[in-house]
Amino acid sequence: MWDTLWTDIHVATADPALMSEKDGYGCIHNAAIGIENGRICWVGAARDLPEAPQALAHDIRSGHGLWMTPGLVDAHTHVIYAGDRSLEFAERLNGVSYAEIARKGGGILSTVNATRSVSENELFDVTARRVRRMITEGTTTVEMKSGYGLTLEDELKQLRVARAIGNALPIRVHATFLGAHALPPEFRDRQDDYVSHLITDILPQAVEEKLIDSIDGFCENIAFTTDQIERLFMAAHELGIPVRLHSEQLSNSGGTRLAARYGALSTDHLEYVVEDDVMELAKASTVAMLLPGAFYFIRETRIPPVDLFRKHNVPMGLATDCNPGTSPSVSLTGIMNMACTLFRMTPEEAFSAVTRIGSQALGLQNITGTLTTGKAADMLLWDIAGPHELSYWIGGRRPLHRIFDGKLDPVI
Amino acid sequence: MWDTLWTDIHVATADPALMSEKDGYGCIHNAAIGIENGRICWVGAARDLPEAPQALAHDIRSGHGLWMTPGLVDAHTHVIYAGDRSLEFAERLNGVSYAEIARKGGGILSTVNATRSVSENELFDVTARRVRRMITEGTTTVEMKSGYGLTLEDELKQLRVARAIGNALPIRVHATFLGAHALPPEFRDRQDDYVSHLITDILPQAVEEKLIDSIDGFCENIAFTTDQIERLFMAAHELGIPVRLHSEQLSNSGGTRLAARYGALSTDHLEYVVEDDVMELAKASTVAMLLPGAFYFIRETRIPPVDLFRKHNVPMGLATDCNPGTSPSVSLTGIMNMACTLFRMTPEEAFSAVTRIGSQALGLQNITGTLTTGKAADMLLWDIAGPHELSYWIGGRRPLHRIFDGKLDPVI
Ligand SMILES: [Zn+2]
Ligand SMILES: [Zn+2]
Repeated sequence: MWDTLWTDIHVATADPALMSEKDGYGCIHNAAIGIENGRICWVGAARDLPEAPQALAHDIRSGHGLWMTPGLVDAHTHVIYAGDRSLEFAERLNGVSYAEIARKGGGILSTVNATRSVSENELFDVTARRVRRMITEGTTTVEMKSGYGLTLEDELKQLRVARAIGNALPIRVHATFLGAHALPPEFRDRQDDYVSHLITDILPQAVEEKLIDSIDGFCENIAFTTDQIERLFMAAHELGIPVRLHSEQLSNSGGTRLAARYGALSTDHLEYVVEDDVMELAKASTVAMLLPGAFYFIRETRIPPVDLFRKHNVPMGLATDCNPGTSPSVSLTGIMNMACTLFRMTPEEAFSAVTRIGSQALGLQNITGTLTTGKAADMLLWDIAGPHELSYWIGGRRPLHRIFDGKLDPVI
Repeated sequence: MWDTLWTDIHVATADPALMSEKDGYGCIHNAAIGIENGRICWVGAARDLPEAPQALAHDIRSGHGLWMTPGLVDAHTHVIYAGDRSLEFAERLNGVSYAEIARKGGGILSTVNATRSVSENELFDVTARRVRRMITEGTTTVEMKSGYGLTLEDELKQLRVARAIGNALPIRVHATFLGAHALPPEFRDRQDDYVSHLITDILPQAVEEKLIDSIDGFCENIAFTTDQIERLFMAAHELGIPVRLHSEQLSNSGGTRLAARYGALSTDHLEYVVEDDVMELAKASTVAMLLPGAFYFIRETRIPPVDLFRKHNVPMGLATDCNPGTSPSVSLTGIMNMACTLFRMTPEEAFSAVTRIGSQALGLQNITGTLTTGKAADMLLWDIAGPHELSYWIGGRRPLHRIFDGKLDPVI
């Protein structure tokens, strides 16, 4: 007997095997889903169920004709931080200059200082509050980066919080080491030394504590060079840890091509990639992770080349980029609307981007991201006309019910 | 004895009497609010309370140091509609042309057809579902327009639903007659006749049933002329009903000046107003109601002249413009973020825009919109660093608790 059988639902599986020219969602109408030990053990049209529902499962639940989708995957966030940058946002709108804000200790280093100054427990608490909001918006898997500690102790603190969130809340967590996020003040004018410190001191310790699922960097003329990022990627390669990269957000500095050469899971932002970069991503099967929240918030005008990603069959992902400076955002459906409105992605592309392709960008494609037999039963029930409606609402749409690991989640 | 006393709160009153150069929110730190019969009977610093809390109120509630603000006022919505335009949104992104969508019966007339085809009960049900979402986002007063019926029977049906929502849900409703929204197919090429029909047939009936709080029109080269709008405004004037107007959204057609001459409560959209228009608004004390949701959704690039409104002291309001075709949106805090990000309004301006100025645009400034003695106790409790944070989050922020008419509202 299965644990649970969901009936009277329509399903948007996000499974490419079920997609067609006419259906970019992989829909099954009048469907049923069986769950055993937190995993999907059966999914299909209800009329194809092998036996009567009562003979199949202990617990039979009706979806009352609503739509079920995979739980959403937010594959790029900086959600682990302390402090508050909303006052800085207000000051800028009131005419205070960047220089003045920097002089008062604002910008990313204010987040670094705040994150360093709190205990691990305090950091857990403020992070968990934000993650709970993501959970109510439908996120079931989240990537979380370090990068606001920038010391051995504080980077590990962030990464331990990532693990603790995954243990304490009903959400899957992928932890990313982003020591190469910004240059800490202690290493002023010694950028190469800081990269050595990351490789020699922080990375081994974090690996020993099993705190890292992937390694990321910020490759940009205002951050780290391709040479520095390559040193980091070589270290990652030796440790067998997959890489990803913030690249081509503000200019074309070659990070995307470099990341593709190292088989990156994803390259992220990409407003300034050119066709050659895109062809490299295609060869490496790297996900192009687009972040319209940051694009909107910093009033960027250059749109990432969605047509080129389509032309070269580069999988497009979408994420909130949740961070206090350039994308204070927790809703993936709100991001889907921005991707459609601002980048002219289709709702079908946006749907795959936050489900199947999000999971691919985290190396979790065998665990979550589609409603397929064998995967975790991470699912959302929505009061919508169809999966296209998920991209329609400005600011996003919240699910009616959330199932995590097979269980109706009491968080909502 | 008062009914309720809220203590251990910080308050952003939105009361201009409490504002200063340094505080655009009218804050009182370590404050208390007394409530009697659903109205605010005392508001001030807790240390100024006339007696010990236990001697003042039956029910004493702690806000645990959180922020209390007025309930939010959404002063421009088309939330009463049937049908679904999310599929049309998806089709357009998949390359289907406007012409093709129109041929298949899409666009505003599809909403008119859907709204006409449902019963009053059905229309209530679908509307109430959307209004419940507005309520969870912090809205306590909402304006609702007709304008998807465009016949005597169907306009009255929409307006009756507005009244029914106000009776059934914990929200104040202002009902606006927008018969002059679009030309119904039955009156093709007889625009003047349709305006006569509105004035002679629909308006008197709606007034007799006490269904109208204000009268609105859509003045634009694709909608109604200033001459036609003026006929409507003259009829409104004779009936003693205040007016408002959709004007200067897509071009400058003179509607704003006309509306100011008739002392309009608000003129709305205003992307194409010029300084002369703004000076007329100032003279008439008309609210400039800005709608960044529609601006964003239709990818408008011309920003309404916020600097001119500031220069001439025209009060700026903000609303969701919730409608299925150009602004599917229910969150006023999400709209505040768009106003700051896209229009460069300050968080202080955005806060007044959805509280005090929103209530002014509905003629409800003596009822709601600020936390002031004598007004309704429509209040929100927020887990935020300060009122500036309300404008900070992409997609908006939800209140922790909602008090409507003095009572903690079970909807949240
Ligand atoms: Zn990032
Ligand atoms: Zn409107």
